[in-house]
Amino acid sequence: MRDVFNFNPGPAILPEPVLESTSKAILNFANTGMSIMEVSHRSKDFDALLIETESLLTEILNIPENYKVLFLQGGASLQFAQIPINLLPSGKTADYIDTGNFSKNAIKEAQKLGNVNIAASTKDDKYTRIPEQSELKLTPDAAYVHITSNNTIEGSQWKTFPDTGNVPLIADMSSDILSKPLDVSKFGIIYAGAQKNMGPAGVTIVIIRKDLADLCPENVPNILQYAVQIKNNSCYNTCPVTSIFVVHEVMKWLKDLGGLKEMEKINEKKAAIVYDALDSSNGFYKGAVQKPYRSLMNVTFRLPSEELEAEFVSQAGKKNLKGLKGHRSVGGIRASIYNAFPIEGAQALADFMAEFEKSHK
Amino acid sequence: MRDVFNFNPGPAILPEPVLESTSKAILNFANTGMSIMEVSHRSKDFDALLIETESLLTEILNIPENYKVLFLQGGASLQFAQIPINLLPSGKTADYIDTGNFSKNAIKEAQKLGNVNIAASTKDDKYTRIPEQSELKLTPDAAYVHITSNNTIEGSQWKTFPDTGNVPLIADMSSDILSKPLDVSKFGIIYAGAQKNMGPAGVTIVIIRKDLADLCPENVPNILQYAVQIKNNSCYNTCPVTSIFVVHEVMKWLKDLGGLKEMEKINEKKAAIVYDALDSSNGFYKGAVQKPYRSLMNVTFRLPSEELEAEFVSQAGKKNLKGLKGHRSVGGIRASIYNAFPIEGAQALADFMAEFEKSHK
Repeated sequence: MRDVFNFNPGPAILPEPVLESTSKAILNFANTGMSIMEVSHRSKDFDALLIETESLLTEILNIPENYKVLFLQGGASLQFAQIPINLLPSGKTADYIDTGNFSKNAIKEAQKLGNVNIAASTKDDKYTRIPEQSELKLTPDAAYVHITSNNTIEGSQWKTFPDTGNVPLIADMSSDILSKPLDVSKFGIIYAGAQKNMGPAGVTIVIIRKDLADLCPENVPNILQYAVQIKNNSCYNTCPVTSIFVVHEVMKWLKDLGGLKEMEKINEKKAAIVYDALDSSNGFYKGAVQKPYRSLMNVTFRLPSEELEAEFVSQAGKKNLKGLKGHRSVGGIRASIYNAFPIEGAQALADFMAEFEKSHK
Repeated sequence: MRDVFNFNPGPAILPEPVLESTSKAILNFANTGMSIMEVSHRSKDFDALLIETESLLTEILNIPENYKVLFLQGGASLQFAQIPINLLPSGKTADYIDTGNFSKNAIKEAQKLGNVNIAASTKDDKYTRIPEQSELKLTPDAAYVHITSNNTIEGSQWKTFPDTGNVPLIADMSSDILSKPLDVSKFGIIYAGAQKNMGPAGVTIVIIRKDLADLCPENVPNILQYAVQIKNNSCYNTCPVTSIFVVHEVMKWLKDLGGLKEMEKINEKKAAIVYDALDSSNGFYKGAVQKPYRSLMNVTFRLPSEELEAEFVSQAGKKNLKGLKGHRSVGGIRASIYNAFPIEGAQALADFMAEFEKSHK
């Protein structure tokens, strides 16, 4: 057990065994006598690692055969552009559902590149909820429908994914991928920056239905074409070798732990501890999101004043509860309790919340 | 001293003190109690590291004030697209000089995005040389002139950079940045994947004259605009935190070693050892590049037959001289002797070459 509980929203806490094996591989990877940072992305040793990483992820997420897993760079933010560049030809419309900051960012990039329809937005409700199926104004022959599965900043999460018929559903799952079982076959593309539930900043996982990759216009630069990356098994250019190693270690940890069903149980337990602390405070702590849409990954709440919020963050920090400040765009408190976050940390936060409430009511 | 001499072309050898400090920071960064992989890219500790990394690089390369250093993702290959996207409006022409594989890749991407003039090519000479100034057919009002300062695969290097007048000179320096002193003020943009002389795969350094960033059309996605990255100090989205840490450590190592003048002396010494072994073999080893253009970083040569080349690589491998196989597109032998490669390794290769020649002549 470490001294510090790390509530950072991403880059975020990683499992301790992963830190240990990575620290060793930085000195000597797979008995090559070289650091994982020094091995060629075209070496046999790394190739074996890359194949095993994809295979572990495929097993854990039960990814169907007609999908390909890519390990790219640039974060979800590059995907915001890469998706319309590949899949939104002129004359077609892409549907976007706006549930918060990162949805908005995805929409802004897409609007520069093609025709966008906002099929629903919960902006008028200050993003305290996720829209219902009945609210969606979907374009019948849309190029795709884009959602953000978990809103890291706002603290909301899709509990049931929208039905988009034959139109491919694309999801930015940066902040809740691998947190619970998922039916991948319902999606055209799932993408995620690794730095929350999968590894360090610097690698982006894209799970793509292979037929969609073929829709890209020819005049798109190779580096931005999914088809080129599929053909080259994520190594069209030098892939982020060390970050992929870490993802491999996280996948091993997750598999050993019992996979996604077990992970979901643990995540539900952790979230329940913090949300219960919040709900039993008689309104001293106010959840930022309506109950049915509360995220299992990012618990967001407010205190009676911004001064108290600052004091809360400061005192928590002194007790080694780190990274609790809400995002600058919304304020308040945010406790990010991703996969690797320990249950003891959730309990430590709940205890601190009770104590702080008592002394500041 | 390690057992293995790592001649990999990139990802490549890193200094041992860098491996040691990185291995430690993977467990605990700057006494935060968190791994460098777990700290927020918006934390004070990381921000201080980012500022210091830029400041070290600025000091070592003597970068003028009207330039900005960016730490991006996607490798040189994404820059191949990003440069014309930002700097090649319709109606303008970009001049490219073709000196090998990566020049060609840069050209192919640019041709998809705008009007390209091949100002010179040494393809007809099988890329065994770099063009002279008198050969260049430059466009008078070109958007920019693009070169590849060191051709990693072919083993050639620009010794004197072309005079492009008022037209910005842009250089892919992935494989020789920081290998010797450089007058940055002669360039509009210098860019480099870190995985040869600066750090691990996963971070790309872009040194850009700030006024050039303002030329980007508005409808370019934010993530691909240099101006957006400058405004956000490389943190428009989550930057590759851990890779930047490693670059910081490499910069410290390089400064402690005495900077670029000292680095150049060492690199010249290493290269001389290997090229001398080659030139004193009475034609058993044949340099792949004409003498005046030989790279200090990638020594490329041929043996009398492909069978002997395979045997050379295999026997060298058994003596722990690793990564000597030439690129699959050109064959032969390539010894990459980047900044961190030790002089003892160059000597070990020269000794092995003499021995192999003796037993296989």
